[in-house]
Amino acid sequence: MIDFTSYFKEKKQAHLEELFSFLRFPSISALSEHRNDVRAAAEFVVRALEAIGMENVTLLETGGHPLVYADHLHAKDKPTVLIYGHYDVQPVDPLALWDSEPFEPVIRDNKIYARGSSDDKGQVFMQIKAIEALKSELGELPINVKFCIEGEEEVGSAHLPALLEKEKDRFSADVMVISDTTMFGPMQPAICYGIRGLCGLSIDLEAANTDLHSGLFGGAVPNALHALVELLSTLHDQEGSVLVKGFYDDVPDLTPEEREAFRVLPHDDETYRQSLGLSALVGEPGYSTLERVGARPTLEINGMYGGFQGEGSKTVIPAKAHAKITCRLVNYQNPEKILQLVKDHLLAHTPKGVKVHVKFMDRGEPFVTPIDAPEIKNAATAYELGYGVKPYFMRMGGSIPIVADFAKVLQLPVVLMGFSLPDENFHAPNEHFSIDNFDRGLLTLTAYYQLLGN
Amino acid sequence: MIDFTSYFKEKKQAHLEELFSFLRFPSISALSEHRNDVRAAAEFVVRALEAIGMENVTLLETGGHPLVYADHLHAKDKPTVLIYGHYDVQPVDPLALWDSEPFEPVIRDNKIYARGSSDDKGQVFMQIKAIEALKSELGELPINVKFCIEGEEEVGSAHLPALLEKEKDRFSADVMVISDTTMFGPMQPAICYGIRGLCGLSIDLEAANTDLHSGLFGGAVPNALHALVELLSTLHDQEGSVLVKGFYDDVPDLTPEEREAFRVLPHDDETYRQSLGLSALVGEPGYSTLERVGARPTLEINGMYGGFQGEGSKTVIPAKAHAKITCRLVNYQNPEKILQLVKDHLLAHTPKGVKVHVKFMDRGEPFVTPIDAPEIKNAATAYELGYGVKPYFMRMGGSIPIVADFAKVLQLPVVLMGFSLPDENFHAPNEHFSIDNFDRGLLTLTAYYQLLGN
Repeated sequence: MIDFTSYFKEKKQAHLEELFSFLRFPSISALSEHRNDVRAAAEFVVRALEAIGMENVTLLETGGHPLVYADHLHAKDKPTVLIYGHYDVQPVDPLALWDSEPFEPVIRDNKIYARGSSDDKGQVFMQIKAIEALKSELGELPINVKFCIEGEEEVGSAHLPALLEKEKDRFSADVMVISDTTMFGPMQPAICYGIRGLCGLSIDLEAANTDLHSGLFGGAVPNALHALVELLSTLHDQEGSVLVKGFYDDVPDLTPEEREAFRVLPHDDETYRQSLGLSALVGEPGYSTLERVGARPTLEINGMYGGFQGEGSKTVIPAKAHAKITCRLVNYQNPEKILQLVKDHLLAHTPKGVKVHVKFMDRGEPFVTPIDAPEIKNAATAYELGYGVKPYFMRMGGSIPIVADFAKVLQLPVVLMGFSLPDENFHAPNEHFSIDNFDRGLLTLTAYYQLLGN
Repeated sequence: MIDFTSYFKEKKQAHLEELFSFLRFPSISALSEHRNDVRAAAEFVVRALEAIGMENVTLLETGGHPLVYADHLHAKDKPTVLIYGHYDVQPVDPLALWDSEPFEPVIRDNKIYARGSSDDKGQVFMQIKAIEALKSELGELPINVKFCIEGEEEVGSAHLPALLEKEKDRFSADVMVISDTTMFGPMQPAICYGIRGLCGLSIDLEAANTDLHSGLFGGAVPNALHALVELLSTLHDQEGSVLVKGFYDDVPDLTPEEREAFRVLPHDDETYRQSLGLSALVGEPGYSTLERVGARPTLEINGMYGGFQGEGSKTVIPAKAHAKITCRLVNYQNPEKILQLVKDHLLAHTPKGVKVHVKFMDRGEPFVTPIDAPEIKNAATAYELGYGVKPYFMRMGGSIPIVADFAKVLQLPVVLMGFSLPDENFHAPNEHFSIDNFDRGLLTLTAYYQLLGN
């Protein structure tokens, strides 16, 4: 295996200058006045991919901001890697809090300060330069590669799922690699091998046909808030386990290897508890805090309201009450099935005298790439080569529906190799990206693709 | 006992004319532009009481609208009756919905249409005319009498409790009579012998020091809404009985006579249920609907809120949740004691990891005059004489704190002898008062005061 340390050292200045040009496009996908800037950034990506010899470089129109596709498929009998990233960025408000111009990159303390430096232009650029390095130094690529660099990640990837379904063949691959997540901390690289899914629903509960006077009716009629409390109290036991029948049915036990991966993560419950101002942590018995957040499903009431909310008191028996619920899901829970199970539970437990209406809302698939999959093992080896330390294995509690969509539609393992740090202010003023991770990340990626090719 | 039928028939036209003069004052206590009208109505009452030979007729200043006091205390060894009523009225908006001018009384279908005709000028006027009749026809009053006619009933009697405490002796009596409640229906007179009290509190529940992302924290931290649901679900059993320890301790069992009084009231659960659009009625086992509303205490959640209330969904773990609660109380529950019991319950049942703050708000005493008290029995006989039918005995579910204040400060039985009908639009356009009940009411009152004097 070739070590690229001196290659990247030699090119570093040129690479940074090219990255700075990329970062100068104010490609804010959320703001219509930046529509042309977004497209200009896409065209920059096109040129960069053409420059390193990618083929079929195409600006795919989506109905929104375009997606850049490119491929290089000449490594016979080698796996095909789909590299996903995004060239669009978050808005920059409040501008006054930036210490330097968001779209004029500067280096301070060996960090690149600019909007998009970390999320995600810097990491997209690393992928391009890693592929270029392999091609230039090996003479040919050790793998087949497809690039899918979109322009709507920061606005929910609205048009991508339809495109994905339509162009399944174009995007098909053996493994998907994404550099858009964070490491655990400096010199603590991490591979994220799972993301929770999501489903959501709203509950509208109706008692009498009008609010009633608590003096004239109180004691004899159902109160919508009492009924809602009674209904929602059936959803969890006191420890926080979900009591909906079948909720956990499709959730496999954590393997000993997964539990060990959670155990070694740097985390202290007491520090965590204190930072949140809590008198105690609560959650499903038998699981650690990080397991609960990363690898177990949840059902959370996100909002609840009914009756009088003003100052003082009002002697009303409310006729209506409302709640909003979302569930975080893990493999192999199916959002649609879970929604139905929760609805069935709510209807089966509806208190006497009231009616309950359930409306389904969000749906997002969970995904897990098995921690012992070769794509994950190779990524770990690559990080060790790039950083000199073993990476952590993480499962993220949040949801990135588009990643799960890729996993589901294309039926491939997804490897999240992120090089940003949790405190690099993505989505906030003074976003920055560590040049140390830029350097080590390039070595990690070139190692990874060589390992995949072997 | 003298029958006043022909007396009142002879005076009827003059009485109606005098009442119309009273009704013409737009004595709306809630509106400051009617301050002088309110005072003019008080002065009308002063003149009316002077005209029938009452003594010590005084306009007592309260800090708000004045109160009219008068007495006649020459019936040696006879009971003293305190007659309470009010000369102020509700606003008249929306004026467009009135079929005739609110302050220009007219008779249609043997009903007097005017603001205050039913609530409460018409009934105050009847009390004055009943006393006049007794005095004029018997030569002397069979009882001692004190009038307390206030001008702030429609704005919460804000200044009366202080005056009452200060002038306890002035108002002291053996029985208090109020004509400001309703009959059960036409030719269905009713004596209200009890009113529920009230107490209220608010709950503020705190979990983490900020709202948290349900992906990054969900499963490991307390959710304020889950905790509120868990906490509030401990307040009632599934039938609606209150589970707060000691809540029912001071509530005596209903006597067989009371239960019989409830049983004979014209009420049909099925009609009641359908009119409210309910699939079922709920409430404390072992009690009828009217018993539940009239004679049993309740704890109602009047409002509840926390987290996201907008459209769609938001994956938040709310840090705060709120609820407002009021209890309807019956004799001999004490509002302060019940507030403390509920607070103790809430603190004892606070779920792990969250803090609960309880704030006390309203307090109002309940009261009951025993159904077999002589003042009640005599009132029943008087109704029979006035209407030719036995009256119903009712306990009202609502609260009239000022009535309970009188009962508590003066330690006297209170008899609520109302002559209005439930559909006479008090507080609404086209308020009216049945002349039939005006006639029969006068006969009932003159009979009652004669009975009390025997």
